Amino acid sequence: MTLALDRTAQELLFLEAHTAHTFSDEPVSDEQIRAVYELVKYAPTAFNQSPLRITLVRSAEARSRLVKHMSEGNRPKTSAAPLTAILSVDLEFHERLPELQPLAPALKDKFFSEAEARETSGTFNATLQAGYFIVGVRAAGLAAGPMSGFDKHGVDKEFFGDGTQKSLLVVNIGRPGEDAYRPRQPRLSYDDAVTTV
Amino acid sequence: MTLALDRTAQELLFLEAHTAHTFSDEPVSDEQIRAVYELVKYAPTAFNQSPLRITLVRSAEARSRLVKHMSEGNRPKTSAAPLTAILSVDLEFHERLPELQPLAPALKDKFFSEAEARETSGTFNATLQAGYFIVGVRAAGLAAGPMSGFDKHGVDKEFFGDGTQKSLLVVNIGRPGEDAYRPRQPRLSYDDAVTTV
Repeated sequence: MTLALDRTAQELLFLEAHTAHTFSDEPVSDEQIRAVYELVKYAPTAFNQSPLRITLVRSAEARSRLVKHMSEGNRPKTSAAPLTAILSVDLEFHERLPELQPLAPALKDKFFSEAEARETSGTFNATLQAGYFIVGVRAAGLAAGPMSGFDKHGVDKEFFGDGTQKSLLVVNIGRPGEDAYRPRQPRLSYDDAVTTV
Repeated sequence: MTLALDRTAQELLFLEAHTAHTFSDEPVSDEQIRAVYELVKYAPTAFNQSPLRITLVRSAEARSRLVKHMSEGNRPKTSAAPLTAILSVDLEFHERLPELQPLAPALKDKFFSEAEARETSGTFNATLQAGYFIVGVRAAGLAAGPMSGFDKHGVDKEFFGDGTQKSLLVVNIGRPGEDAYRPRQPRLSYDDAVTTV
């Protein structure tokens, strides 16, 4: 009632959406991921830095290279998902800032000449974008299965040998399969999560 | 076309949504923020840990305590916004895990007995939730003005004296005012952001 977003969209993105643990065989196309990207790319990052990079793991060879770095409990579903995406931060994101901030190209050197500043700001903003991406997967009518349980150093070495990208999250993507969802767990109440001062 | 989300919702949340730099005088009610929270609380976090906390800065006294820690360029808009929220991570989020994971209360001690593990996982997951929250503000028909430009240690000491909460992002919230939006800046192309392996 107090939301502008209609009920159908609320359900699609949040109220009825669940993390999927199994997937159907229906493939996920590049066009679907492109549509997700073209939607969520507009969501905000600091200075429009847009540091998130997405690696779509499609080939059987790449999938086996990924699965071996997943924690044991995440291996079967990552082996079986129609598509898996590695979400990462590009720690050299500042090299693109002059294109992303054409009116303020000096921001690159003003704020991001130090690797530590890039790591802090880039990781934070790429993580915001990971949140947008999960919403975007659902906007495509697909289920997401985000996983933090993997060997980050192993994945980084395996897929980003040169060290400028760091993995943040691995996301299985597809239509939900049989028994895809676990029961909804409780959430914190508004009064537990929100304080007014 | 390849999205399940209808065009109106796409525009509301992403395509036509912009970061606002000025706001109208129309107040933002607790009911609106409650509706945002009740929507986005369902979006996923690892182990349902739900570490994000939201501090609504409503009183003139609290606002002045916040504004002094904002970077100079962010002070006028933070002074003028109808409502400002401090988004933070609760580094003691694991104390709530037995409620949030009633079927697996042992997760609390298995994964989160160490402060460093809580800081890494909590910060990452609260940042995902910050992304969901920005989408949720837009779902309420409101404009968000997220800002990283503030003295984090200053805000933490000022608002979270005991050290268990760490600020992540400050978000102005309201209806857009005059000249609220800057021109849309370029985004990375799909081929620049997405790689297939």
